[in-house]
Amino acid sequence: MVRIAVDAMGGDHAPLAVVRGAEAARAEGIGEVVLVGDENAIAPLLKTRSGIEIVHTPVSVDMEESPSVALRRKRDSSINKAFTLLKAGSVQAVVSAGNSGAAMAFAIFTLGRIPGVERPAILTVHPNGLGGLSILLDAGGTVDCRPSHLVQFALMGNVFAKYGLDIESPRVGILANGEEETKGNELTRETHALLKGLNLNYRGYIEGADLYNGTADVVVTDGFVGNVALKVSEGVAEALVGFLRKGIRASLRARMGYFLLSDVFKALSRRMDYTEYGGAPLVGVDGVCIICHGKSNERAIKNAIGQARGFIGKNVNEHIRDAMEEYTSRTKSKER
Amino acid sequence: MVRIAVDAMGGDHAPLAVVRGAEAARAEGIGEVVLVGDENAIAPLLKTRSGIEIVHTPVSVDMEESPSVALRRKRDSSINKAFTLLKAGSVQAVVSAGNSGAAMAFAIFTLGRIPGVERPAILTVHPNGLGGLSILLDAGGTVDCRPSHLVQFALMGNVFAKYGLDIESPRVGILANGEEETKGNELTRETHALLKGLNLNYRGYIEGADLYNGTADVVVTDGFVGNVALKVSEGVAEALVGFLRKGIRASLRARMGYFLLSDVFKALSRRMDYTEYGGAPLVGVDGVCIICHGKSNERAIKNAIGQARGFIGKNVNEHIRDAMEEYTSRTKSKER
Repeated sequence: MVRIAVDAMGGDHAPLAVVRGAEAARAEGIGEVVLVGDENAIAPLLKTRSGIEIVHTPVSVDMEESPSVALRRKRDSSINKAFTLLKAGSVQAVVSAGNSGAAMAFAIFTLGRIPGVERPAILTVHPNGLGGLSILLDAGGTVDCRPSHLVQFALMGNVFAKYGLDIESPRVGILANGEEETKGNELTRETHALLKGLNLNYRGYIEGADLYNGTADVVVTDGFVGNVALKVSEGVAEALVGFLRKGIRASLRARMGYFLLSDVFKALSRRMDYTEYGGAPLVGVDGVCIICHGKSNERAIKNAIGQARGFIGKNVNEHIRDAMEEYTSRTKSKER
Repeated sequence: MVRIAVDAMGGDHAPLAVVRGAEAARAEGIGEVVLVGDENAIAPLLKTRSGIEIVHTPVSVDMEESPSVALRRKRDSSINKAFTLLKAGSVQAVVSAGNSGAAMAFAIFTLGRIPGVERPAILTVHPNGLGGLSILLDAGGTVDCRPSHLVQFALMGNVFAKYGLDIESPRVGILANGEEETKGNELTRETHALLKGLNLNYRGYIEGADLYNGTADVVVTDGFVGNVALKVSEGVAEALVGFLRKGIRASLRARMGYFLLSDVFKALSRRMDYTEYGGAPLVGVDGVCIICHGKSNERAIKNAIGQARGFIGKNVNEHIRDAMEEYTSRTKSKER
């Protein structure tokens, strides 16, 4: 059975939502859970200790804390202690809904990177209009990227799509301001030239409008643009739903219409609900780490623990290691 | 009465949609229109010549043509001829739904920039959740930006919000991957430092989710990110509407619900309809120029001509000139 460490102190609703999510994962037989954090805060919340262990530390990283400051001063924090357990081999994955910058900094510090990866990326999975799933990376891990970083994101995203999502030959695209080769900025143009030379099903640029229509299985972008794109998506969905809600409330006729359409709206909100998908894997670090939304509730935490188990079971990191090895040897032989 | 040159050959539905839009603008008394393009293609489409003039040129720029190639080889194109008329003072504005990169290149070449502006920007106006309007710039004019470019975009957006949209003290924000000062990339961090020193109601970083909720009146970003953000918005809206449509078709109950809600859905699609807002002003060039969506229909062209009239009437470019003069003298006195 897998054993997963969960940062009990991370997230807006920690520790309660984390404890409940861990218990739910345990109850569903997903795996054994190690809750890392302040035992005095965690233990009273637990309904049972069976299959759930607590590793105590009084220190935790705040949501607003600077990752570099945390890295220097909070080596004993719950998030870093979770990574230490992973490094030591006593758990196989870490899940955290805490400060994602700090999680990334500690992951690099304690776990290290997979050889050949210069920067890790946060990988998100979302449903697309073709009924399948698409990947976006980087969703906010590395904001200032060089072309080689994006190339590595493409390789890691490709592996994740192949082995994590069972997509046979993932179509890889770069997010840009137009489809034509003449579009793009300095970063995407250089990346484009590099990706054309690799052993990928590379399809060139895709536009923002194609993010959700399944044009690409793997959408590659830097962490700044990826974060903006995902948050714009949330904002648009909220604005549209808000507008509909206002219109629905305005008349009896519309309220009746809403009642008849309630199943459709429920299905929509399920589809838009991030808790369905759990969290976002941090790829490129040497260990399985799932970063959750700060707002994560019990359900999101439980699903993230399930996601971590899938990540472990499918040996995604081993495949990333192989892909990076091939890429590095190829790059080196070209340099000779 | 204002006189506006319209690129009759620009856009996916040119020249028919452009001719009809020009006629509609004329019929509503918006202004006199000069259609620039192939007279043999335009004249047979016209219902009346009253108040509409044709300036003939057989050359036009294709939608996929490289702007730099067009700039070298197509000085006689309809778009550049329109700018030449503006430069000579025989019209007061130019409207085009053609190749926007080429329009921008010719605008810079023929009209020149307003002193102090290094790069022009495409400015879009969209309704926000507070019931007002917000501005985003750059929507795709300049993809590789330096901090000074973004500062100039902020100043121009501020002027446009103030004099074009009558917002007394526009709140200006930079689009970034988080609200905290520690967020952002190299470009936004330097821009942030510069904007704090200016005479603006500057509010720092805003996130993608805030684009449509009215957190800022003027959202500043580079043309790459701005383009991605706008196209992601289109994509999300399309995906949501597609999902609802599918659910509505699936059952009689849902179809009845849709019937009762049809007014609400109609209002929503009106709100999302870019043709309502016409086009996007190209700000920073020395003359009024409205860039329209390539897909523009008659209505979008008519509204863009109306928008051009508003831009002229409100002397937005004079105010931009003043703001840039103040900014340049301030920057110079600091350098001494």
